[in-house]
Amino acid sequence: MRIAVDAMGSDNHPQPDVTGSVMAAREFGDAIILVGDQPQIEAELAKLDTAGLSMEIVHASQKVTMTDKPSQVVKGKPDSSMHVGVGLVRDGRADAFVTAGNTGGALGIAMLRRVGLGRIPGVKRPALGVIFPTAERPLIIDNGANADCKPEYLLQFGVMGSLYIERMLGVPNPRVALISNGEEEGKGNALIKETIPLLRASGLNYIGNIEPKEFVLGAAHVGVTDGFTGNIVIKTAEAIASYMSNLIKTEIKASPVTAVGGLLAKSAFKRVGSHLNPDEVGGAPLLGVNGVVIVAHGRSNAYAIKQAIGQARRIVAQKVVEAITAGIA
Amino acid sequence: MRIAVDAMGSDNHPQPDVTGSVMAAREFGDAIILVGDQPQIEAELAKLDTAGLSMEIVHASQKVTMTDKPSQVVKGKPDSSMHVGVGLVRDGRADAFVTAGNTGGALGIAMLRRVGLGRIPGVKRPALGVIFPTAERPLIIDNGANADCKPEYLLQFGVMGSLYIERMLGVPNPRVALISNGEEEGKGNALIKETIPLLRASGLNYIGNIEPKEFVLGAAHVGVTDGFTGNIVIKTAEAIASYMSNLIKTEIKASPVTAVGGLLAKSAFKRVGSHLNPDEVGGAPLLGVNGVVIVAHGRSNAYAIKQAIGQARRIVAQKVVEAITAGIA
Repeated sequence: MRIAVDAMGSDNHPQPDVTGSVMAAREFGDAIILVGDQPQIEAELAKLDTAGLSMEIVHASQKVTMTDKPSQVVKGKPDSSMHVGVGLVRDGRADAFVTAGNTGGALGIAMLRRVGLGRIPGVKRPALGVIFPTAERPLIIDNGANADCKPEYLLQFGVMGSLYIERMLGVPNPRVALISNGEEEGKGNALIKETIPLLRASGLNYIGNIEPKEFVLGAAHVGVTDGFTGNIVIKTAEAIASYMSNLIKTEIKASPVTAVGGLLAKSAFKRVGSHLNPDEVGGAPLLGVNGVVIVAHGRSNAYAIKQAIGQARRIVAQKVVEAITAGIA
Repeated sequence: MRIAVDAMGSDNHPQPDVTGSVMAAREFGDAIILVGDQPQIEAELAKLDTAGLSMEIVHASQKVTMTDKPSQVVKGKPDSSMHVGVGLVRDGRADAFVTAGNTGGALGIAMLRRVGLGRIPGVKRPALGVIFPTAERPLIIDNGANADCKPEYLLQFGVMGSLYIERMLGVPNPRVALISNGEEEGKGNALIKETIPLLRASGLNYIGNIEPKEFVLGAAHVGVTDGFTGNIVIKTAEAIASYMSNLIKTEIKASPVTAVGGLLAKSAFKRVGSHLNPDEVGGAPLLGVNGVVIVAHGRSNAYAIKQAIGQARRIVAQKVVEAITAGIA
């Protein structure tokens, strides 16, 4: 397998991107194509042991920044590492592309018909899936690709999310739910209410509407939502987890006795952190485009990049794009 | 001051409702009118020391349950404790009404023109404000009264929220923001984008759009959002806080050393819990109706009811309804 990786993607690029790629090449035995500024990539690779690994560099003269607007990126940076990386997948020179860069930019480029991958036939709107890092690892889709949605988009998110979980986790007939502010049918906004009959008639294992609490606990394998709400759920979850962690640290340090308690309990806190670590679950697959693209978190470290590459190769191996193509048709 | 309290509101009514009312009567010196089933209220009061307190009972033959649909409540239970309590405010026999019952029911009854309070002239949609229990105590409005909103509703939520914070916390010119999935102007859904120019031209101290992370940290005093999104933010926050607490408990109990650490750090965890305790911040004021109504959490204990009564009396004393009436006009 050949995986293209954006060397200029993460906030601290190219170090995490290149190091994570080397880790992945060693762990999975795949060929990795690093895309970006050749001198910088070479300098980074020189620090690492790459003996026996298949590491190729494809130069790209531009890079997308986190503050670039998607429209600017798509048209204004035709030789960005994202354009080149997506192009490698389009041309069959790579099986997947992984980037920790600007999500909107990656989305925009991937969706382009001529230089990107375009959409899978019949897909109205590609969507970002995110695996939630709670124990049951539920998928939330969409997580920001489409701020304004129609019921038929949400129906397709359900189809794509269900096929993703089925293929990736081997769960037959995954439970699909709408994320809402209440379980009762009268709850929800107009979009939710109009989507319910579509999901009911879809043949999916639609279990109804669930609140964030049930979603977090894994009541559904797939939580369907518009991209605005999905992004708000993820960002609220991150905000509260971070707020609580800081509050606990502050309060534990507030007295000598609790500080000793905190030291003794340190391994427990570490386990909590690793349970909830978003790096473990890889990146967000861009579902509905005609190829495999993973967008990892901008804050990704090398380990997170390696995990995202592992996820990408599994999506390829499990033929998720093919499954979605058949499922949408 | 005279505060009417729904004795049949909370999940465990009438105990928390009646006990909290007695606590409030003692702490604040107000007259409390308990509304609900007279024999049950009398039995509960008999267990408590009410010497020197002004406790009145107004009988109501029906009660609203948490599963009642608002439409059923409004028309089908004309002698519910909610109808009677709201009626006491309408008739000037009470200054405010506090209930820990069904939010939709309270809203529906309060908004009725003939038997409820009706809307403040010019208010398009009353909204539920919720004080977020993080350190800066920001207000999020709407929290579920209006799942589908128009830009002009959000503008009014900003006006009402700003006046509430100004009067209640003494903050001049509170910072108002839209809660969005990104701070940049290109982010957000159509509703957000259409609301921006209205807030800009409003004369409010509109600081732009903020993400949940900034909201939690108090970047704005007032976070404006549609009721669906606001409710999702609150419910996601509760879900993650509860999930993390349980995870920490489990991991601390997982080994004898961490368990000892947990015991030593116990007071720190208690302080974290009390910081984030929603009971501290009272209930959700129903802003935009022509009178003072507070909806407390169904899970309220006596202390939470007492706090909600304290909040109600402060809203009355600070003339929040009068301020909103002038502000909207």
